[in-house]
Parts: sequence; structure tokens; C-alpha cells
Amino acid sequence: MRTVTAYGVPKAHGSFEKLSIERRDLGPKDVLIKIAFAGICHSDIHTVREEWGGISYPMVPGHEIAGIVEEVGSDVTNFAVGDRAGVGCMVDSCRECENCRAGEEQYCLKGNIGTYNGVGKDGQPTAGGYSTHIVVDEHFVLSIPEGISLDVAAPLLCAGITMYSPLKHWGAGPGKKVAIVGLGGLGHVGVKIAAAMGAEVSILSRSDDKRGDAAALGAAHFHATGDPSVLKSLRGTFDLIVNTVSGNLPIDTYLSLLRLDGVMANVGVAPEPFQVRFSSLAGNRRSLTGSAIGGIRETQEMLDFCAEHGLGADIELISSHQINEAYDRVVNSDVRYRFVIDAATF
Amino acid sequence: MRTVTAYGVPKAHGSFEKLSIERRDLGPKDVLIKIAFAGICHSDIHTVREEWGGISYPMVPGHEIAGIVEEVGSDVTNFAVGDRAGVGCMVDSCRECENCRAGEEQYCLKGNIGTYNGVGKDGQPTAGGYSTHIVVDEHFVLSIPEGISLDVAAPLLCAGITMYSPLKHWGAGPGKKVAIVGLGGLGHVGVKIAAAMGAEVSILSRSDDKRGDAAALGAAHFHATGDPSVLKSLRGTFDLIVNTVSGNLPIDTYLSLLRLDGVMANVGVAPEPFQVRFSSLAGNRRSLTGSAIGGIRETQEMLDFCAEHGLGADIELISSHQINEAYDRVVNSDVRYRFVIDAATF
Repeated sequence: MRTVTAYGVPKAHGSFEKLSIERRDLGPKDVLIKIAFAGICHSDIHTVREEWGGISYPMVPGHEIAGIVEEVGSDVTNFAVGDRAGVGCMVDSCRECENCRAGEEQYCLKGNIGTYNGVGKDGQPTAGGYSTHIVVDEHFVLSIPEGISLDVAAPLLCAGITMYSPLKHWGAGPGKKVAIVGLGGLGHVGVKIAAAMGAEVSILSRSDDKRGDAAALGAAHFHATGDPSVLKSLRGTFDLIVNTVSGNLPIDTYLSLLRLDGVMANVGVAPEPFQVRFSSLAGNRRSLTGSAIGGIRETQEMLDFCAEHGLGADIELISSHQINEAYDRVVNSDVRYRFVIDAATF
Repeated sequence: MRTVTAYGVPKAHGSFEKLSIERRDLGPKDVLIKIAFAGICHSDIHTVREEWGGISYPMVPGHEIAGIVEEVGSDVTNFAVGDRAGVGCMVDSCRECENCRAGEEQYCLKGNIGTYNGVGKDGQPTAGGYSTHIVVDEHFVLSIPEGISLDVAAPLLCAGITMYSPLKHWGAGPGKKVAIVGLGGLGHVGVKIAAAMGAEVSILSRSDDKRGDAAALGAAHFHATGDPSVLKSLRGTFDLIVNTVSGNLPIDTYLSLLRLDGVMANVGVAPEPFQVRFSSLAGNRRSLTGSAIGGIRETQEMLDFCAEHGLGADIELISSHQINEAYDRVVNSDVRYRFVIDAATF
């Protein structure tokens, strides 16, 4: 075991503090990464604040991790010391079920092992990226191409793949009209990726505040949905809607925006059940679906795609002592568009 | 105009009576069909009983029509006198919108024109197949292959295509596990079609009553879902669920039966909104969708498929004076599996 510095919450309702945590000794397939940057995902906040259920303490979140390989186990073949490496939302899975075998480890039938708030195969609780170092099996380590800076790459490990996977899976590309609901941490990366895929991208956002940003990010259209007539005017427009919003949307209304065989894919974790009428689905043969991050193979594909297109997250770099404040700002949607913690300040 | 005999309901809350109705003179593209058989669809009952909104009287239902061409308009090219012909749920559509141009007239953006309870392009109310004759534009007339008797073909025009279309669209075939929820008019044709497509078909039915029938129809498995442990044991099993039930199902539970990328397609008209949790969709990337009958091209494909596989509906042939009684029996699920009216008794 090695003791490393982390930032975490030591007890319920606590604030972030500097902590010491243990990382396991390297197994033959393990990679030790010296973390350079860790993104702050809204999931971190939901977890730490126990909005998604009970957790164990100390809680060290962070699943948008970019850094440099510092040491490798004896049987590691894909990484060498000095490589640029990333870790996303998973650090392991059963690797035996049909979903794992299909390369969709995020849907592991036994449940993938979360980068934090999980329990590793060694029986120890996992701790995330708000830390100087992390030890991960090489299968769950991504290679960050030279084309992306590590700071703007970090959020791609969760926000990027969360958007890339549904966009790819449901065919965003030339000739396709894609709407992204919500322009936050997920949405802003989604616009960039969908536009790079060649789709005609619309942003649906409540107010007009981000109209200028949307264009700069690559959106062809921006619609402020606070005015109900706006949604009405968009009926039958889109091939794909990716909904990043967690709040309750009028799903029937959003489904009505879809063309024949259109898909509404939800990636925002809605706390309340969706309510959807039969006619909203059978009309135009629309689908309501959801998507969770992406598999390791697809995450690598996403990173390569982003590097090829010179594409990263828009970030605000903060130091470790700003985490508490950053959490409040994320909750107030006061960030454009992702906080990334400089791990040199841990 | 020509006056023909029909069976319909002359006034609100009325019973079926023998009526005289008018059919339009043949336009250049019109086909006059002498009806041989008309199926009774549950939609007929919902409509007549005004459970789906107000209607105009007299109401002559029937959209599962099989008969023989008796006369054709001057420009008709696809049909000749003596041909075996069918009419389903639509008798026209705008034919100009993108969905019509795609051959999916059922999703006509201006609304297709129903075989009954619609308003034709001539401004006259449409009247359905409980009648000796019907006049329909040849584009909406199907050719019934020699391989199927007209009586068992009639229900294919609605029940058959309602099941064929989602089974085809979402890939039922060899290596695929398909569940059909509900073994009634729709479900029993669905089993036959899905089995003929090569899928491994399971019937999910509340009680054990139809276990024997399911096997005879071609189902590989039968599960009585009244026992909650049965559904639990089927988690992650199916690639496709086609739900023919109109009542409120626990959708989250049914979605949990799907494998990775599984689809639950609803064809039963549920009166209440579906309630579905985000996790039910994002887990295994499941889709909840719906489907409405099928386009004309696909309906023809379905008829050809059924003829090739020697497949028709299981019917109980009745005469015109039994319609009232048959309606009550359908509502009580007391039919195996479709009533068909012998038009010779009109």
C-alpha cells in the first residue's frame, strides 16, 4: 500500500479537506497514474451530498481523471511510464458477462466498479480522482492522445463519453438534425462532438443567456424553450434529442419534436419517473431511451475522435481549496462549463 | 353514388342494425371491392362505444377487409376484376409529406384517412368494412395472395400488420428472443409471425389458461405473469418485447426483462401515460417505443410473408346478427382469437 494525498469529505455533511488515503500496491496488470487534473462532475456532488443514497467516509470523488503513468505492473502491455493516461467512471467490471464481453462494461450485469463509492475486487472501497495518484487495472485506463491538453481532456472521461456514446449509437452525422437539451457540462461537450460528427445541432435551453455560447461551440441553432410557442414550432424537426437535463421535462412535448423514427436519449439522471403517453411513442414511431457513459473501447474511440477534431471541454481551472465553492457554483449553474482541479495543488 | 348494405350503429348507445349507406362513384384510380369477410378489431369497439372520443352516426366500423375486386376505375393499373383484395386501417393519406413519401402512410404528417370514422378527400365521412362493398383508391388496396383464405386473411390487415411491422423493424429473426405480452387478437398473430421469422418466441400472459394455445401457435415458451416471481426470473432475457396489452403494465418491470439494447414496443393503446424510470432506460440502454399498423408497402410485404408461411389468423366466423354479442365477448376476452363477419350475411 502507498499513502497518497487526496481531497475528500471525512464525514457526513462535511466539507472537503486534505486527507491521506491508501492506494493498493501494483498488481501485475495495474497502472499507477500521477494525476494532473480532475474534473468536477455533477455526479460527484450528488454522491457527496448523499442525494443518490448512503455513502461511506471518507468520500473522495472524481471520475474525470487525466495524468501521467508513473509506474506499471509486470504484465502491463498497453502503457509505459510517462504515457498520458485517463480514467473515467469505472475502474473494473466482471469482464465475463455478455455485456462486458461485448465491450460495454458500463452495463456489466454484475455492476461495474465505480471509480469512487464502489468496492474494488480487493474488497476495499474505491476512491476517486481528487487525489495525487490512482492505481487502476490497465483495461480501464485510457490513452489520452497528444492532440488534447490534459486539463481539457479530463472532463471528456465522463462528460465527453456520456455524450459521444448516444450520439454515435443513434447515428448523429451528416444530414441528421440533433437537438441537445441543456447547455451545461454535458451539453457543451455534446454540441462540439455532434457538430464534429457533421450533424446539424440545435441547443434547447430555457433562457436566452447562452445563445452566443451555443454558436461559438458549433450549434447551428439555438432555441430558448421558456416560451412554449418555441417548442410548438419545432414539432417533427429532429432525428435525435439528447437530454442532459435532470429535472422533469414535459416528455410528450419533447417527443413531439422528433421526426419519423426519432430517438430521445436521456443522459441526465431524472429523479422522478418519466410520464409518456402511448401516442407520443406510436406517432412517428418514436423511441424514449437512455444511455450511461460508454464502454472502454468506445471511450478510447471518443478520445481519439476529440484529438483528431482538436476538441476538449471548456474549463475553469481551480485549486484544491476552491472545491467547496465550486460545488455551490455548479449547483447554481455558474460555470462555463466544467471545473477542473489542478492536482498540483493537492 | 351507389347504395350498399352495411351493418352499423345508427345513433349513440345504439346496437348494430342493417343500414343502407352510400359509396362514391368510382374515380379513375378507385377500386370497388365486394367484401367477403370483415374482422372485428377491438378498435372497432372502442370507437363505436365512444371510448376514444366522439363519433358521427351512422357508424359503420371494420378495417380488416378481404374480398374480390368487382369494378375498377379507368386508370387503375394494379388490380383487375376478380382479384383478391384487402383493405386495412387507412383508405388515404396526403401522399406528399416526408412520411408518405417514405412509404409510411400510417404516420402521414397530416393524418392518414381512417377506413371508418374519418373524412375522405371528397369531404364525406368514411364507412368501414361491415358492409357488402367498399370503394378505395388502389394505392390503399392490398393484394391478397392465393396462399391465404380470405377469411383468415382479413384480420391480417390490422392485427397482422400491427405485429409484423414492429417485429420486422426491430429485428425479430434467428438468434433473437422475442416476448409478446398478451395472447389475444394481436398476440396470437404476433406469435405466428415472429416464429415464422425465426425468432425464439415467449408469450407473457397473466394466467396459465392459454399455455397450450401458445405452444400450438408456435411459441417456444409461455410465462404466466400473475406470479411476480416469474417476471423476476426473466430479467435480462429478451431482445424485443411487443406489448399488445392496453392496460397499465408495470413498465419498469417489463423493461428489466430486456437485454442490452433491447426494445419494448407498445402496440396496445394504453389510456394512461406510461411511467418509466430513467434507470430502466439507461440500464442496458433500453428503448421504450410504440408502433402503429404499417405502411402500404409493408402491409403487402406482410401478406406475402404470411402466404409464403401458410399463416393466417385463428378465427371464429360469425354472421351479421351476431355482431352485438361478439363485441361483448371480445371485451370479455372470450374469443380465440378473432371474430370475422361473413359478409354474405349482410
